[in-house]
Amino acid sequence: MIHLITRPTLLLDESKCRKNITSMFEKAKRNKVQLRPHFKTHQSHEIGRWFRDLGVNKITTSSLSMAEYFTNDNWQDITVAFPVNILEIDTINLLAGSIKLNLQVESVEVTKMLDEGLRYKINAFVKIDTGDHRTGIAFNNYALIDSVVASISKSDHIKFSGFITHAGHSYLSKGIEEISRVHYETTERIIKLKDKYSGRYPELIISTGDTPTCNVMEDFSGVDEIRPGNFVFYDLMQSRIGSCRTDEIAVAMACPVVAIHKERNEMVIYGGAVHFSKERIEDQVCGTIFGQVVEESREGWGEPIEGMYLTKLTQEHGIVHVPDHLIDKNKIGDVVLILPVHSCLTSHEMKAYVTTKGRIISRF
Amino acid sequence: MIHLITRPTLLLDESKCRKNITSMFEKAKRNKVQLRPHFKTHQSHEIGRWFRDLGVNKITTSSLSMAEYFTNDNWQDITVAFPVNILEIDTINLLAGSIKLNLQVESVEVTKMLDEGLRYKINAFVKIDTGDHRTGIAFNNYALIDSVVASISKSDHIKFSGFITHAGHSYLSKGIEEISRVHYETTERIIKLKDKYSGRYPELIISTGDTPTCNVMEDFSGVDEIRPGNFVFYDLMQSRIGSCRTDEIAVAMACPVVAIHKERNEMVIYGGAVHFSKERIEDQVCGTIFGQVVEESREGWGEPIEGMYLTKLTQEHGIVHVPDHLIDKNKIGDVVLILPVHSCLTSHEMKAYVTTKGRIISRF
Repeated sequence: MIHLITRPTLLLDESKCRKNITSMFEKAKRNKVQLRPHFKTHQSHEIGRWFRDLGVNKITTSSLSMAEYFTNDNWQDITVAFPVNILEIDTINLLAGSIKLNLQVESVEVTKMLDEGLRYKINAFVKIDTGDHRTGIAFNNYALIDSVVASISKSDHIKFSGFITHAGHSYLSKGIEEISRVHYETTERIIKLKDKYSGRYPELIISTGDTPTCNVMEDFSGVDEIRPGNFVFYDLMQSRIGSCRTDEIAVAMACPVVAIHKERNEMVIYGGAVHFSKERIEDQVCGTIFGQVVEESREGWGEPIEGMYLTKLTQEHGIVHVPDHLIDKNKIGDVVLILPVHSCLTSHEMKAYVTTKGRIISRF
Repeated sequence: MIHLITRPTLLLDESKCRKNITSMFEKAKRNKVQLRPHFKTHQSHEIGRWFRDLGVNKITTSSLSMAEYFTNDNWQDITVAFPVNILEIDTINLLAGSIKLNLQVESVEVTKMLDEGLRYKINAFVKIDTGDHRTGIAFNNYALIDSVVASISKSDHIKFSGFITHAGHSYLSKGIEEISRVHYETTERIIKLKDKYSGRYPELIISTGDTPTCNVMEDFSGVDEIRPGNFVFYDLMQSRIGSCRTDEIAVAMACPVVAIHKERNEMVIYGGAVHFSKERIEDQVCGTIFGQVVEESREGWGEPIEGMYLTKLTQEHGIVHVPDHLIDKNKIGDVVLILPVHSCLTSHEMKAYVTTKGRIISRF
């Protein structure tokens, strides 16, 4: 397969990817928690169907456009895990008229605007900030939570579904212990709201779930639904924080070598910011890195190569640091395989996958 | 125009953009240096034609695919300013059979591979590293330069065109003085090669030109051709290093406000890494920034607002820091305008421009 590559190409190991999906599906089942996978990582009809084959029928997206894309492949129950963008009320109505649409609100203002603009029913989760501080109502701001829940209850168009949170700060963890701490803190904070509101709203659900906590934890008590996304591919960042093993990473960039600078242990590859994205890891030993080279294998790729990092990216150029003992083993015209730092952004850049068997999988 | 925006949109001020083009065109003419603009920034047939209207007929691209795209709009003389990717020999032949194709080589190895694979004639520049250390032969490695020039001369398919360099390290400058120092150093280093080879190759040309040095300098003695690209739009990074004024920046992202967190002086916008790219500026006062909010004006936008920065990006979310005195002036459902850090990458993410008059301009 690799001998056919001439340009930067995002390789997908279908077998690893399907294993990641099955493994998360089974963990959810085992723990009696609803899996509503986030489809923002793969954004592909075909990969979405691999979930459907297992029986998954509820999904998450990060935009209304992405929800439209998956509605076109017949997904009927979609949560848009992004604060309602009221300027897109026409798209909201289009979707709400045809599927079960679940939105995320965090202010009385938006609930009112929604109520005025809606022509069909939607479900609303109240977004809770359990420590990530990206957005949402602080978990202990009971006055505001109360007002928003009340404003939802007043609307004929909006049904209150429960509370949603995203512990995005788990991505900053260093190891399993820290991930576990984030998980227990997050869960404890949001479950209090369940205790407080479930008398009045017995059907309310608690929706959590970033990839690190979903992958590492086994105890989801009190949580009704998890929404991990990145686990479908994983990446270097996930392996660094202890959320996956490197052999679970299901995507790798294949990039042609176009120049070698032996005197400074560097190779230039065709593969830059417009292919990898500029997502970075600050490594204490190696400095800034944008990816790590892996060994090529019969089936696709093997383990990461110690010391062989993507250290610089401009628009189309990538610079790979090559250790002394490998500098003579690489030559111009080779294709190197590189694990990306953040697979969500790299796959967004690349727009298509090529499986290690040579099949093209398109995406949104 | 802005009242029609519902999603992250890249606005283009056509008048500023045309002024930037005219100004660089006139500077080149005044200095009797050939302008071969780099089209990697705009990647648009229509914007390309604004150059053609002035009489420009030679261009630069950063990939063979991009050269194909512009060949489709009848550009006949294209330099691909990227080390030859020999794996794309079929595309090279396709292009070489229909246009004047100028490639960039920096090793005997690649020259030989080209010579074996070429079915049509191409022109080759030898890539010189004048201090940027991304790629190219060190300016004073005369032995290697000699070998590469000799290997080109031996080929029936390759004509030696001269020496090409890119002073990418000018982007790290702090102010006009540093840009000027990079310019003189670069020029001095590459011009020595002209003196050395012009006896044997009287037609050889010296091609330089990144946006900072092309914009700031007036003295291009010894240089035959300049290849700036970013100047067509400029951006926050260029204005920070003193390469442009903020009122020359011709693109701004328009993003809906979806949440406000007054207690921490933050707004959440619909506009994330997949819209802006994760290119960043490390600001000594404000820390990491990904963009700066500008005032809205009748014609489009005015000056940047002090202290109002895009400080965090995830896939679709952006976090804007809002100073105290402005926090009550912004509301959910507003659209904010933001100057991007690096317009080349932002426009790559966005895939289309909307002019401040409301016209859509498509791109590669």
